[in-house]
Amino acid sequence: MIGWEDIYKVVVAMAPLYVALTLGYCSVKWWRIFTPEHCEAINKMVCFFTLPLFTFEFTAHVDPFKMNYKFMGADAISKLIIVTVLSLWAKLCGTKGSYCWLITSFSLSTLTNSLVVGVPLLKAMYGPMAVDLVVQSSVFQALVWLTILLFVLEIRRTKNELHIGDDHVIKNDVGGNMEAGIIGRSGPTFWTLTKAVWVKLAMNPNSYACIIGIIWAFLSNRWHFPMPTIVEGSILIMSRAGTGTAMFSMGMFMAMQEKVIACGASLTVFGMALRFIAGPLAMAIGSIAVGLHGDVLRVAIIQAALPQSITSFIFAKEYGLHADVLSTAVIFGMIVSLPVLIGYYAVLEFVH
Amino acid sequence: MIGWEDIYKVVVAMAPLYVALTLGYCSVKWWRIFTPEHCEAINKMVCFFTLPLFTFEFTAHVDPFKMNYKFMGADAISKLIIVTVLSLWAKLCGTKGSYCWLITSFSLSTLTNSLVVGVPLLKAMYGPMAVDLVVQSSVFQALVWLTILLFVLEIRRTKNELHIGDDHVIKNDVGGNMEAGIIGRSGPTFWTLTKAVWVKLAMNPNSYACIIGIIWAFLSNRWHFPMPTIVEGSILIMSRAGTGTAMFSMGMFMAMQEKVIACGASLTVFGMALRFIAGPLAMAIGSIAVGLHGDVLRVAIIQAALPQSITSFIFAKEYGLHADVLSTAVIFGMIVSLPVLIGYYAVLEFVH
Repeated sequence: MIGWEDIYKVVVAMAPLYVALTLGYCSVKWWRIFTPEHCEAINKMVCFFTLPLFTFEFTAHVDPFKMNYKFMGADAISKLIIVTVLSLWAKLCGTKGSYCWLITSFSLSTLTNSLVVGVPLLKAMYGPMAVDLVVQSSVFQALVWLTILLFVLEIRRTKNELHIGDDHVIKNDVGGNMEAGIIGRSGPTFWTLTKAVWVKLAMNPNSYACIIGIIWAFLSNRWHFPMPTIVEGSILIMSRAGTGTAMFSMGMFMAMQEKVIACGASLTVFGMALRFIAGPLAMAIGSIAVGLHGDVLRVAIIQAALPQSITSFIFAKEYGLHADVLSTAVIFGMIVSLPVLIGYYAVLEFVH
Repeated sequence: MIGWEDIYKVVVAMAPLYVALTLGYCSVKWWRIFTPEHCEAINKMVCFFTLPLFTFEFTAHVDPFKMNYKFMGADAISKLIIVTVLSLWAKLCGTKGSYCWLITSFSLSTLTNSLVVGVPLLKAMYGPMAVDLVVQSSVFQALVWLTILLFVLEIRRTKNELHIGDDHVIKNDVGGNMEAGIIGRSGPTFWTLTKAVWVKLAMNPNSYACIIGIIWAFLSNRWHFPMPTIVEGSILIMSRAGTGTAMFSMGMFMAMQEKVIACGASLTVFGMALRFIAGPLAMAIGSIAVGLHGDVLRVAIIQAALPQSITSFIFAKEYGLHADVLSTAVIFGMIVSLPVLIGYYAVLEFVH
């Protein structure tokens, strides 16, 4: 059983994140130091500099030849479970826009803020082994799941642009079928989509950081050369600012919203249920399916219950798809995550 | 004698600062990511949050009961030498505005960027002992020298506001005499000045940070209680961003200037001579006078040759006094400081 000192350790690790968040929030809401234009500037600095270098720093130190493939398998299975359940559910109550809700529900239940929140939290709970796992999961998320998300968002946009009405969507069913339908109908559409996705990824500094980081990790582990200290230091000077500035900027973002809960109470509950129950549940099933146990199993479940990924909100905003729901999930999720995660931490001690 | 590996160690410690500077510069000048309004936002974040917490973090860990008083004495003597020489020189060629040049020359020859640049540099050169000394010197600079600088700047402003013409200055001589003249003439003026200085200090987050930091250091060392981990972590999350964001912001500032050398070549040479020759020379005399030797002597001299303090530029701009000269000293000084400091490092090896 975990004691109070274990819980205190977790609180100590998480409190700084909330302090930075609060400073960002107060500086806009109460002290009025920053205008909305200013907030955009800080956000840009985070998106273009500190966060990509933060991501790079972690990704480049992964050993791609010693990844925990069982853990990755569990992750993939959990996503498959979620997509299957969501598709079935959309098919059953197939109304207008269920494809859209499929995308949003997938975001809500699978995409987490793994590095900024996950690394300090899981390090405090289970030590460096947990950091390795959460970084691997973040690499996988950035390279695979966010790419897939961008792909389905582009499909939706293309569909809208091609004036394929919503009726058509219902005839063709949702998800995979519709995608297959569009792609089958027009070969060039597929390439247009792929190109659009690549352009998006190429314009996203965090994707860059992750791709370059993993390439570096492959090369340096294959030929056993370390990163030169001078390069390491030059990256660290900005990446060290990553956590602080990212949380500060999220606080600013919160302060600029008219309400903390932008999408109404029922959608908030829906979002929270997907994020903190459905996500970890699917991960638990996947983990047990591949035979994870002990601390790896615990890490797998807890990392699936981290607060909502900020990138998923950015994409939602960019594609005009339920941005209010995802903004609420990011903000409200961050606020409630500490007790929820400590709850998981305590309960999972009884799992063997 | 120092070898190439020693110099490489210093370059490794300093290169990250220049990388962050260059990123800030390029993001404004070449990539056009940030507008001038944006630069102001980043600068505000640095001035109000990351830099004060960075200062606090260092100051709070000083042991005020184990300060190197010889070193502080040497510092005070060096400042006295500089003020004496500058006053004499101003008296000899006493022209209009020589009081102003006295202030600016004092800034140029004594005020250094001790924490952001000094800590990594001197740590690489002489290890943790040097960090202790440079932090002590930064505390002394923030509490004593910057207060004195503010005081003389307020005197000058009051003089201008009271419509005491420049002729009067010449009659009354410069520096101390004039100050005494004004104060003698009107008692209330002194309190007005003192109040103005306090208001300035109270509005300067970095002064706050230093004062609160040193109070904390006194209390915690007197009663031997450490800073709680949760407080330490909450400060570190933003203070870790200090070096990176401060250099990034300085790079932005450079990019916004029309020219790197804003004040003409001869004033630049004058500024550089005060910063990199007069300052360290006075410190060397002071240090030898109090009997410093070995690495402490070397640290004393090198920390006096650090690039120009950014605060001194901020004050110059605020009081409209030779802001172009100080901006050049900050920018150009930062660029040339690496070879100059390595030169000092190499030469000082021969001093015993």
